[in-house]
Parts: sequence; C-alpha cells; structure tokens
Amino acid sequence: MIDITGDTWLYIGIGCGLASIVAAFAYYRWVARQDPGTKKAQEIAGWIKEGSSTYLKKLYSALIAVALVLGVVLAIVFSGDASRPLRGLWTALAFGFGATCSALAGYLGMSIAVKANVRTATACGRSLGQGFNVAYKAGAVMGLAMVGVAVFGMSLLYLIFHDTEIILGFSFGASSLALLAKAGGGIYTKTADIAADLTGKVEIGIPEDDPRNPAVIADNVGDNVGDVAGMGADIFDSYVAAAVASMLLGTSYASTIGIQYVILPLILCILGIVSSLAGLQFVKVGPNGKPGQALNSGTIISCFIFAILSTVLFAVANAAAGQMVLSWGALIATLAGLLIGVIIGFTTDYFTNDEHKPVQHVAKVSASGTGLNIITGFSYGLISMVPALIGIVAAILVAYFSADAFGLPGVYGIGIAAVGMLSLTGVIVSNDAYGPIVDNAKGIAEMSGMNEEVIESADKLDSAGNTAKAITKGFSISAAALTVLAMYSAYSEVIMKYSGSSTFILDIQDPFVLSGIFLGTFVPPLFSALTMLAVTRNAFTMIGEIRHQIKERPGILAGTELPNYNACVGIASSGALRALVLPALLAVVLPLLVGFIMGPKALGGFLGGSIFIGVALALLMSNAGGLWDNAKKYIESGHFGGTGSEAHKAAVVGDTVGDPFKDTAGPSINTLITVMSLVSSLFAPLIAQYHLFG
Amino acid sequence: MIDITGDTWLYIGIGCGLASIVAAFAYYRWVARQDPGTKKAQEIAGWIKEGSSTYLKKLYSALIAVALVLGVVLAIVFSGDASRPLRGLWTALAFGFGATCSALAGYLGMSIAVKANVRTATACGRSLGQGFNVAYKAGAVMGLAMVGVAVFGMSLLYLIFHDTEIILGFSFGASSLALLAKAGGGIYTKTADIAADLTGKVEIGIPEDDPRNPAVIADNVGDNVGDVAGMGADIFDSYVAAAVASMLLGTSYASTIGIQYVILPLILCILGIVSSLAGLQFVKVGPNGKPGQALNSGTIISCFIFAILSTVLFAVANAAAGQMVLSWGALIATLAGLLIGVIIGFTTDYFTNDEHKPVQHVAKVSASGTGLNIITGFSYGLISMVPALIGIVAAILVAYFSADAFGLPGVYGIGIAAVGMLSLTGVIVSNDAYGPIVDNAKGIAEMSGMNEEVIESADKLDSAGNTAKAITKGFSISAAALTVLAMYSAYSEVIMKYSGSSTFILDIQDPFVLSGIFLGTFVPPLFSALTMLAVTRNAFTMIGEIRHQIKERPGILAGTELPNYNACVGIASSGALRALVLPALLAVVLPLLVGFIMGPKALGGFLGGSIFIGVALALLMSNAGGLWDNAKKYIESGHFGGTGSEAHKAAVVGDTVGDPFKDTAGPSINTLITVMSLVSSLFAPLIAQYHLFG
Repeated sequence: MIDITGDTWLYIGIGCGLASIVAAFAYYRWVARQDPGTKKAQEIAGWIKEGSSTYLKKLYSALIAVALVLGVVLAIVFSGDASRPLRGLWTALAFGFGATCSALAGYLGMSIAVKANVRTATACGRSLGQGFNVAYKAGAVMGLAMVGVAVFGMSLLYLIFHDTEIILGFSFGASSLALLAKAGGGIYTKTADIAADLTGKVEIGIPEDDPRNPAVIADNVGDNVGDVAGMGADIFDSYVAAAVASMLLGTSYASTIGIQYVILPLILCILGIVSSLAGLQFVKVGPNGKPGQALNSGTIISCFIFAILSTVLFAVANAAAGQMVLSWGALIATLAGLLIGVIIGFTTDYFTNDEHKPVQHVAKVSASGTGLNIITGFSYGLISMVPALIGIVAAILVAYFSADAFGLPGVYGIGIAAVGMLSLTGVIVSNDAYGPIVDNAKGIAEMSGMNEEVIESADKLDSAGNTAKAITKGFSISAAALTVLAMYSAYSEVIMKYSGSSTFILDIQDPFVLSGIFLGTFVPPLFSALTMLAVTRNAFTMIGEIRHQIKERPGILAGTELPNYNACVGIASSGALRALVLPALLAVVLPLLVGFIMGPKALGGFLGGSIFIGVALALLMSNAGGLWDNAKKYIESGHFGGTGSEAHKAAVVGDTVGDPFKDTAGPSINTLITVMSLVSSLFAPLIAQYHLFG
Repeated sequence: MIDITGDTWLYIGIGCGLASIVAAFAYYRWVARQDPGTKKAQEIAGWIKEGSSTYLKKLYSALIAVALVLGVVLAIVFSGDASRPLRGLWTALAFGFGATCSALAGYLGMSIAVKANVRTATACGRSLGQGFNVAYKAGAVMGLAMVGVAVFGMSLLYLIFHDTEIILGFSFGASSLALLAKAGGGIYTKTADIAADLTGKVEIGIPEDDPRNPAVIADNVGDNVGDVAGMGADIFDSYVAAAVASMLLGTSYASTIGIQYVILPLILCILGIVSSLAGLQFVKVGPNGKPGQALNSGTIISCFIFAILSTVLFAVANAAAGQMVLSWGALIATLAGLLIGVIIGFTTDYFTNDEHKPVQHVAKVSASGTGLNIITGFSYGLISMVPALIGIVAAILVAYFSADAFGLPGVYGIGIAAVGMLSLTGVIVSNDAYGPIVDNAKGIAEMSGMNEEVIESADKLDSAGNTAKAITKGFSISAAALTVLAMYSAYSEVIMKYSGSSTFILDIQDPFVLSGIFLGTFVPPLFSALTMLAVTRNAFTMIGEIRHQIKERPGILAGTELPNYNACVGIASSGALRALVLPALLAVVLPLLVGFIMGPKALGGFLGGSIFIGVALALLMSNAGGLWDNAKKYIESGHFGGTGSEAHKAAVVGDTVGDPFKDTAGPSINTLITVMSLVSSLFAPLIAQYHLFG
C-alpha cells in the first residue's frame, strides 16, 4: 500500500480485477440456481433468451469485422515510428483486448439478465424482498464484471508496457465497442418498444406485454440488448477513458510532479471496487421494504467507504514517505468529483420523479392535448440541464483549483475528479442493470399469467428501477463530460509533445478553433437524428409486419394461435445493425477529417463544440424521456382520469417520443464524444505532424 | 461618394434613411387607399385591429417603464469616467433612441398589417396578383421603415458624437426592445394559436378561422403582434448590431487600417437600402403568376444590385484615392456573407418545403402515429443544422482569411460579412412581413364568408408566405451568428483597452473560460423553456375559457350568438406580458453576474457557450417547426388520407408542438444572444476593471 511508485499496485489491480470477476461469477451461479418458475414462464423466458442471443451473436460478428479492420489500420498507422517499431502492433492488440473485455462484460451481464428475469418473477411470488434480491444480484454480475475486466486489463497492460499510449488503444477498443453496442441496442430496443406500443396499446387496445402482440418478445429482447448490454458498455467506456486520460496527464507531468500520479487513477479504481463490493452487501429489502431506498442506500454507503479508504490511503502514503507524495489536492478533487456526481444524480431525480412538480405538471396538461404534453415535457427537459451544468462547472472549478493549490496541474485535477465520480461504477452499473431485469420480470409475470400480487410486486420493483436509471443517467453524463475534458487536455499534451511546441492554445477567437467548434456542434445532433430516424424507420417496418400478422391470422387476437415472434425479432436485429454503419463512421472519420485537413486547433475546437452541445443534448434527451415515461405512469396510477383517459392517450404519445430520446439517442451521445476524444488523442501524434491547413 | 473618411456618408446615411422612411409612408398610404371590402370583413378586421392595438399599447407601456429603469442605470453607471462626464447621459439617451426607433418601426409595420389583411382579402376577389400586391406593399412598409430608422439613427448619432460606444447604447436599446417584442409576441401568438387549434379543430371539430371559436380573434391578433411586430424587431436588432460591431472593430483598428473602415458598415447599409428599394420594384405577380417566385426574384435581384453597387464603390474609391483605401478583402467578405446567407436561406427551404423528402417523409409516418411524426420531425430538425452550420463556418473562414489576405484584421472581415449578409434586410423583412398579412387575409376571407375562389387565392398567397418565412429564418439565424461573433471580438477589444492588456485569450482549456462556456450553454435552452412553458400555461388558461364559453352559451356553436373574443384576447395579452419578466431579466442579469463575479474570461466563455448552443437550438426549433407545419399542410392537400385522417390528426399535434418551437422560442434565441453580447460589450469597460475572480 505504501509503494505508490513501483509495480505493487499494478499487481494489486490485477488481483482485485480478478477478484471482482470471481465475485461476479459467484453471483451468477447464485442467480442461476434460483427457481426458474413454471413451464409457461420458462417458455417465454426462453424466447427472450433466444432472441437476445441471436442479436448479440450478429452484433458481435459484425463487431469482430470492424475491430479487425480498425486494428489493422492502427497497426499500420502506428508502425511508422522507427524508434518503436512494434508500437503499431501493441496498439492494435490493446485495441482488440479492450473491445474483447467490453464485449465479454456485456455478454456476461446479458446472459445473466435473461436468466434472472424469469427467476425474479418467480421469486416475487414468494416475496418482494426475494424478488429484489434475485434481480439485484443479477445486476451486480454486470457491475462487478465490468469494473473487474477494466481494472484487470488496464493494470495488466501497464505492467507489461509502462506506456499510457498503449492503454489509450485499450480504451479506444472499449469505447468503439460501447458505441456500437449502445447505439445498436438503443435502436433495437426502441424499434420494438414503439412498434409494440403503437399497435398493441393504441391500435388494437391490448395491454402492454400481452402475448398476442407479435412484437412482445422483440420488446423484451430489446430491454436486454439495449438496457443491459448497451448501458453497461456505455459506463464501462467512460470508466476506462477517465482512468486513461488521467494516466496520460500524469505521464505528461510525471517529471515535475512524480510518477506516482500516473497510477493514482488505477489505485482509486481499485479502492472503488473494494468499496462497491462492500457496499453491495448492504443492499437488501425486507418483505415489505422499499426497493428504491435499498438501491440508494447501497450507493451512499459505498460513497462513504470510498471516501474513508481514499483518505486513509493518502494519509498513510504521505506519513510513510515522510513527505507529501500524494497531494491533498488530488484527494479533494477525487471526493469533489464523487460528491458532485451523486448530487447531480439526485437532482436529475427531481425532473423525472413523479413526486415533484415537473412530472405532475406534464401529466396535468396532458388532459388538454398531446401537443401540450410534448411541449411541456420538452421544456422541463431543457430546464433540467441547468442544475447538472452548474454541477459540472462546480466540479471543474473545485477540481482544477484544489489541484492547483496543492501544486498539481489543474487539468490533472479535472481528470482525477472524473475518476472519483466514476469510482463507484460497480454499484452504479449494478443499480442500472437491475432496471431492465425487473422490467422483463414484470413482462414475464404478465405474459405467463402469474397472479395479481406477483405482478404488483414486480411493478413495485420496476418503479424503483426507473428512478435508479434516471440517477445513473445524470451521473454518467456528468462523468462523461469530465472524462472528455480530461481527455481533451491529454490531447493537447500529445499535440504539444509531437509538434515540438511548448504551448497549445485553443482561443475561441481563432478562426480555425471557432470553425472547429461550429462543426463540432452538429455532430451529436446529427448522430442522434440518424439513430432516431433508424428507430422510426424500423418501427414503421415492424408495425407493417404486426398489422399483417394480425390481419392474416385472426387466431392471434383470439388467443388460439401464437404470433410469429421471430419475424419482429429479425426486423429489429437487422434494422439496428444496418443503421449503425453511418453513425459509427461519423464518429471515427469526422474527427480525423477535421484534424488532417483543418489542423490540430480546429480539431481541438471540434471536440470542444461536440462536448458542449453533446452534454446539453444528452441531458435534455435523457431527462425529458424519463419525465414523459413517468408522467404516463403517474396517470396510469389513477391521476387525471387514469388509464384510457384522454390524458393517458396524450401521455402514451409523450412516452413514445421520449423512448428514443432517453434510450437510443441520449445515452449514445456520451459514448460518441468519448470515442471522438479517444480517436483524436490516439491520432494526435500524426495530426500534429501532418495537416493541410491551420 | 469618394470622400470615405469624412462626414459626407453620414449625411447621405441620414438622407437615405429618411428616404426609406418616406417610401414606407408612401406604400402605407397606397395600401390604406385600397378597397377595405364588405362591412362584414371590415367588422372582423376591426376586432383584430383593436386587439392588436390593445396589446401593443400594454406592451409599450411596460417597455417604457423598463427602458426608463435601464436608462437611469446606464446613465449612472457610465458617469464615473471623469474625462467624459456626460457619457452616461448620452449612452442612456442613445439607448432610449434605439428602443424608440425599434418600437416605431414595429408599430408602423403592425398598423399597416392590420389594415392590409382585409384589403388583401378583398383584392384577392379581383385577382391573385392584386391580392399579392397589396400584401407585399404592406410588408414593404415594415421592411423599409426598419432599415430607414436604423440607418438614420446610426448615422445621426455617429455624426453628433463620433463615438461608437454611444452607438452601442443605440443598438442595446433596439435589441432590448426587440427581445421583449419578439418573446412577448411569440408567447401571445402561440398561446392563441394552440388554444384555438386544440379546442376548435380537435375538440369541437370546426375549421380553422371559424368565427364561432372564441379564440379566433386572439389567434389573428397573434399573427400581427408575433409575426409582424415581433419578427421585424428581431431582424432590426441583428441589423443594427452587425453594423455597430463592425464599427467598433473598425474604431479599434482605425490607427493601423484607416478610419474609413469605421463607417464602411454604414456605407454598406446605405447601398443595401438603395438595392432593396430598387429590388422591390421587380416583385410583381401577374393574374396567374407564382407568388413564391416573385418573392424570391425580389431577393435575388436585390442581391445583384447590391453586388454591383458595392463593387463600384470600392473601385471608384480606390481609383479616386490612387491607392487602396477600401481593401478588396472587405468586399470579398461582404459579398461572401451575402451569398452564403442566401444559400443558407435556400438550404433551409429543403427541410421545410413539401416538395422535398423531409416534409413528405414526416407526413408519411404520421399515418402510423403521432409519436413517429414528432420523432421524425425532430430528427430532421436536428439534421437541418448541418448545412447551415457548414455555411456559417464557410462564411467565417472566407471572411476572416480574405480580410487577412488584404491587410485587414480577420475579425473585421467576420463583422463586415455579417453586415453583407444583412444588407438586404429591407427586402428580407418585406418578404417576411408579407406572410402574416396573407395569413390574416385568408382568415378574414373565411370568417366573413367570401367565396371559394377568393379563399383559394388567399391560400396560394399563404403558402408562398410560409416558404419565405422559412428562408428568412435560416437567413436571420446565420446572420445573428456572424453578428454576435463580431460583437464578441468587439467585446475582447474593449476588455483589452480597459484592462490595459495587449492580449485577451479565451483558451477553451482555461478553467474560467470552460466554466463560462458550460454556464452559457444552459441560457438559450432555459430561455426557450421559460417562453414555451408560458405558452402552454396561457394556452391552458385560454382553453379553459373557451370550453367555459362553449358550454355556458350553446348559441355560440349554433352560430346565433357571438363568442366573447375579448376574454381570449385579454388572457393572451396579460399572460404574455407577465411571462416576459423572468426571461428578460436572465438575458441582462446573467452576463453581468458572470462577468462581475467570474471575470472577463468567464464572460467571454459564457457568451461563446450561449452562441454555440443558441445557433444550433434556433436552427433546430425554427426548421423542425416549419417542417411540422408543412407536413400538416401536405396531408391537408390530400396526401395520406387528407384532412380528418389519422395521419392528419397526428400531423396537427406535430404542428402544435412546432408552433412554439418556430414562432416563440426559436426566433427569440437570436435576439437573446444579441442582447447578451451587447450587454457584455457595453459593460466590458467596468467588468475589465472590477471583478471578483478570474
């Protein structure tokens, strides 16, 4: 613990990462051993499982092809440096390793999710608390696997190479995969959801999750591939990127501040894993307990443990060295990041929780028409940016100036604040993966005709999941913002190093920087639009298929004949994969085009522009989406006329609009800006030397 | 013409401004002399006129109070400089003069609009061409009055004071008034529009503009106060701000580049007025001609005239002086600004015209549900940013580097490009004011029961108005972007001058700049949200009133009893005025808070952030709004089931959402960022000396 400059902590990191993975497997086995329930329930779960696996197999095959191409490009591009002839090869391998780790964690999370759904539903038959435990432990599989492979991978790579630029390749691999998994999953899940809702609830008038709806299985598969695999990959990539950005900054400044700051981010990740593992033990719900409170208490307890552990670490290290080897500024930045992350998360809750004015007001105006529902919800979404952005600014200022005051570079403080904010990723992802599992459980309970009490329990679990999800999103967007800001500084450092210049100023008044910013501002909107248009296009196709089935085979509605679920699963799968091509290309190609044509300053502006608008747009879309969803639920719980009323019809449309906002476009934006920052940093050595203008 | 350094051009400016005002009055009298039509039509027009005057009187009374307060503040704040003891007084007076000019032009435009509507409808009874001429000439009143008072005011003030900082006060006055007029009018018009649509078309099932709807007069009043008075004020403020920003930059650099560049922006405005006056003569429609083409041809012919005049000016001035007194770089920047403005305007048309894919596709998906209509329209709105932003970047780069190549400061090039882009404001505003006049004419034709042919002619004129409106918006947003960028540089110059520093770098990586940017990014969204929430709140109240009237007095629907129009007019008026307070305060107070607390760099970032997100948001809202409107019209013209079909119902909701986007929030954003830039530049001398941090 005291040796903070040698390799000791890297070995600890490898061990701790493996321990986290082992814990994930232990939870996996525990969940798998639970009662899988009735035959009917198992049959339905089997369809969902099959649909999910089919999609993931298709996605991963496509990804392998993409990764191979990108890997070869990286290997060739980075082999030009005669002093490090193997750098290209190692970068490419690190890239592949990062992508594989990300894919593995996603796969593991999803394969337990499709087992856990039916087991949660069955456990709900015994008690709410037991249902909660199954779902939460399954969520923890994802959370622990994710942080485990991340810390294992980064520690191992740094132990072998002692070169942060190689780890950048790892991060790029993880993020590229995350972008595809997240955007693809987001398109898939909302295609199915919208098609199922519009035809089922609105046109035919059957309830959600009714097995007569041909899209019902695709809808449930979507929850798994979009919300479990996709969302997990999303936070995974911020987590790795935050650590790597800080390590890069630590490396740049190592000669003046000491090499201990290179691995400090990794050490904090390790403490975060320990805190998460400890915090998870406190998440329990009694027979009549409140699942929402249980989720939040896990987060808060982990925070405290992390704060104590990190303070002890700094104190012991400094005491042992007899001097300040770990600056208190870094500790303040870390804890400020964490604290502000939690605050932003809970603020987000204000805008999406039905106990507060925004959701209630949107529900109220719904009675006067769909238009008012949309405008009001959108407006609150815009307002919801305010506290989060003020929080991000507070984090920036506190982190920068606390680092600065204790002799560290301010930008390192920002990086380490991002690491602090994400240190509890284990817990956060667990809470988040819990959501789609209970959502699925509710679906299975309804479809397999379990009794009312079970469905009610599942419904309670589901509501808690929605709030957890909203908090996670506020959290992950803010963390992504800080991460890319740190990555941004890392980019500047690389540019300075390779252009041989001692300064790299990105003055907004410089025409190249300014042009870059304006070009950057259209990328997140364009990306969002392309993914959302893919959703509507695919949903349109699926609606056609559903109408066709219902019309051709009257037995479906009568309940005497099973619909062809696979047709809808196939439409969602292939549609999502096809739709990924253009947005993914944009993310990788646009920064390179701007950099190689307009130069490093324009690229700096470009990244800035995409971050500024990206954060705002992500907050808007996630929060407005959550708000519409809960306004609908609020009405369904009996307000303003309840289910079936005019207000409800309006709120259903609002929810339909909010779905791709919050589950397709919104959360992909984080990953998009992370990928663009990583591409830029990775290619910065080349861009610094070769560019047409600027 | 050759004396470009003395006061000659200022006298020409005063004369030319007066000439433009005289021309406006001549058109006014011509329109007023036209046949006011049947008694029934006159009665309806009378209600609209009365409602409009009532609102404007209330608005202007409130404005006088605000202007007095702000004026006193300015007078006190700027009297601290012992070397210029009267500066405070003059700034305050210039501020009041600017506000008065803006109010006068708006008032004139509106008072002719409420006369022209019924006369246009009546003229349509004779022929399409005659209807067009009445509406267009009435629109020209507004266009000519606007540029007239602007050039008159600026020339007069500069002739008296030879101090661009005083003219900054004039610009601030014009913009403050524009912000209130635009946002207030925008809230008013959409409150009435949404309430009328939701109850009339959707609930009761009576057509648009049916006199049985209690909100129908408020709706028509809204077109006048929102689209005529408001929109005119909006472009007016960009027009003045662009000229003032360039004059400020010219003053800063006068010692190195020559004092002719201080008044060059004014000279270009003068040439613009001449070109507009000439171009207007070509706008004519034969008995079966196409009004849309006529409008566009006026714009294009004016462009050519302006290009020729400005080229001649530069050539003659340089030839007469025997040396380059007016740099060709400035000419290239001017023409590039104008050309790119026109291109952006026409590109916007792609996204909002029903001849192209976006509108048609949105209409098509509407058949599958309202949700798809909203998502698809919103997505296209996001994509529509792309060409406009690329255009803005092209304008920035061309203007900067053409100025730079010919020995001028690049930022001056950006300013003069904005002046170029706005030089044809006379024509642009004329085209724009035409829209609501023909919209009103259509309404009056329907309400007063004119025959089908007349209504059809009015409808044709109305369609052309929609396209003109879309083009104007693309144009005005881009111009506002360039304007605020020039104002931005002017701000930097003032900060440097008063802080005694020779550089003022706004590095995105500086924590204060970065924090400022993030804070700036929430202002346009917050402003938009507040104005839109005001719309829904007021519409909610009005819907209640309408339902109440319909329920209590069955004679209204039977057509035997007149509804109480004034009740709705009153709700819209007082609601709009009350809702203005908070947004207006934000625009003035937030920049000052950031500046005085966090310092000039943070304020620089703050302005940057609000510009970057403001331009994107304005483009999104204006274009998505126009698209939804035209998708609805496309369905109404018989596609996908026509009026009354499921697709139509969905499209009506889309239009309801789009209304506050395109007519309330979207266009106010330009003015918001202009006001914030002006406040910052005006207070920059104080902020440079007094600030808490940074």
